[in-house]
Amino acid sequence: MTITDLASLVEQARAGRVRAVARLISLVEDDGPELRSLSAELAPLTGRARVLGLTGPPGVGKSTSTSMLVSAFRARDLRVGVLAIDPSSPFSGGALLGDRIRMHDHTVDAGVFIRSMATRGALGGLATATPQAVRVLDAAGFDVVLVETVGVGQSEMDVVALADTTVVLLAPGMGDGIQAAKAGILEVADVFVVNKADRDGVDQTVRDLRHALSLGRRELGPSWRQPIVRTVATTGEGADELLAALDGHHEWLVAQGELEARRVRRASREIEAIAVASLRARLGGVRGGEVLSGLAKQVAAGETDPYTAADQLTKGF
Amino acid sequence: MTITDLASLVEQARAGRVRAVARLISLVEDDGPELRSLSAELAPLTGRARVLGLTGPPGVGKSTSTSMLVSAFRARDLRVGVLAIDPSSPFSGGALLGDRIRMHDHTVDAGVFIRSMATRGALGGLATATPQAVRVLDAAGFDVVLVETVGVGQSEMDVVALADTTVVLLAPGMGDGIQAAKAGILEVADVFVVNKADRDGVDQTVRDLRHALSLGRRELGPSWRQPIVRTVATTGEGADELLAALDGHHEWLVAQGELEARRVRRASREIEAIAVASLRARLGGVRGGEVLSGLAKQVAAGETDPYTAADQLTKGF
Repeated sequence: MTITDLASLVEQARAGRVRAVARLISLVEDDGPELRSLSAELAPLTGRARVLGLTGPPGVGKSTSTSMLVSAFRARDLRVGVLAIDPSSPFSGGALLGDRIRMHDHTVDAGVFIRSMATRGALGGLATATPQAVRVLDAAGFDVVLVETVGVGQSEMDVVALADTTVVLLAPGMGDGIQAAKAGILEVADVFVVNKADRDGVDQTVRDLRHALSLGRRELGPSWRQPIVRTVATTGEGADELLAALDGHHEWLVAQGELEARRVRRASREIEAIAVASLRARLGGVRGGEVLSGLAKQVAAGETDPYTAADQLTKGF
Repeated sequence: MTITDLASLVEQARAGRVRAVARLISLVEDDGPELRSLSAELAPLTGRARVLGLTGPPGVGKSTSTSMLVSAFRARDLRVGVLAIDPSSPFSGGALLGDRIRMHDHTVDAGVFIRSMATRGALGGLATATPQAVRVLDAAGFDVVLVETVGVGQSEMDVVALADTTVVLLAPGMGDGIQAAKAGILEVADVFVVNKADRDGVDQTVRDLRHALSLGRRELGPSWRQPIVRTVATTGEGADELLAALDGHHEWLVAQGELEARRVRRASREIEAIAVASLRARLGGVRGGEVLSGLAKQVAAGETDPYTAADQLTKGF
């Protein structure tokens, strides 16, 4: 694809053509040679969208909550782009789309773009592709970009933690406070949502959460008291309160100069992830791959240790 | 610490001195300058232990299952080392030890070593420290090294997937089969355990699992049919069946030449992780840190794109 083709695709995406947006995100996912030119093309067009992250353990209702948020933003006439990050599975050969079916309500609305992204199992996959996809949606003129991720792992956390505002979802009966803290989700949250608030145990979950929060202080500059919003995403209950909490956090970010700081931090990690991925590719390249496999056999046999082996591998750098 | 001190610590660890083992693992966690010498010291002593990985979503009973397995291996008079990987939390300042209390039964037994390891939030943390800690326990003469990790994220998966045999725990009512597949845990499992098998819904969970497994084939050489074992870890029910399944898989690995292949693969990833961490450190070092933060500001302002910035960052390599 030529640079002219790319520029034309970007222009179509900005004009609201859904297929152009989809093609651009495919380019990002494919991680092909066009990505560099595309990234250069997008750079001056970015920085306008509000980027929201949404995460939580499996089963808390992330998809329905995303759907609820999409409706709420649409009611304000804002365009919303959704990136649903699914760990890839060899079983499905890609992203599992099962629970996207609920999002069907929004698929005929031109102001909404929804995309499931597979992570291809590569550690670098999430870290490099997601921010690029966010850039595509931002450049295409979406007012809000919502990154939703299943799972509670470190790399998934890193992704949502890069949002302007990160929403952590919990639900009653999902395990005690310690389990939540172990999952590493308390510290990344700007706003908590206790979904399925019509179920038994919701008060206990809110209490556990308050208690866990009272044990720690966040060390992220001027303190922000993380609100806890109760929702029933399936009925839309609590949507207004959640939107108010998100707006409150956005205003706080702007007032503190923290929005700019977060975006610089995000750019920094993004650059680093790309740099590491390119160095990693050089390690595993034709020549590196041979060297690595020879070294791995020596380490497995106890003939050398992995540090010495790593030194030999990076000798040429 | 001198090399002589290190050699003496290793010798004490091999003689069964628990404190020496603990100090060696602290050296690994601290990621200090001694790690290279230590790794060289350990290399010729490794390769004897059976390395088991145990994972599953929060709340399935990983700690009690680990405890049950420890008892079962001890009944065979095998020495067991346990590494419990906890994502670190700023709230606790390190690993959360709450659920380790159940492991207390084993703490007076010299044939058992249990250690919670914090991951310090760094993506490279898990990937580099865990295999080194496994090496310490292997070199110290533990017959079985059990790596247990909470969470279902990609980096956590990468850790347990490096075991000789990976056990994935599920429990009734933890969400449907699709949720499990999304969490990426089906493909890493060599043996499945459905714990809390005295609860309602266990048959449904086993059926869902069988169904999910029937949808896919693993592409890991000669096929191994992943057994599904039902346990009640709190009472020890199913421990014999689980041990038999683990032995069966171990025999299969040996018969297929797959044990050696897995260990070479593990060594390869270990070398690569160390190499990437050292390159990453160079990127973020004194000079690199300044360059990176300048580039990040430019990217955040849309003045340049992250690929161009990454090229500039790695220019000197």
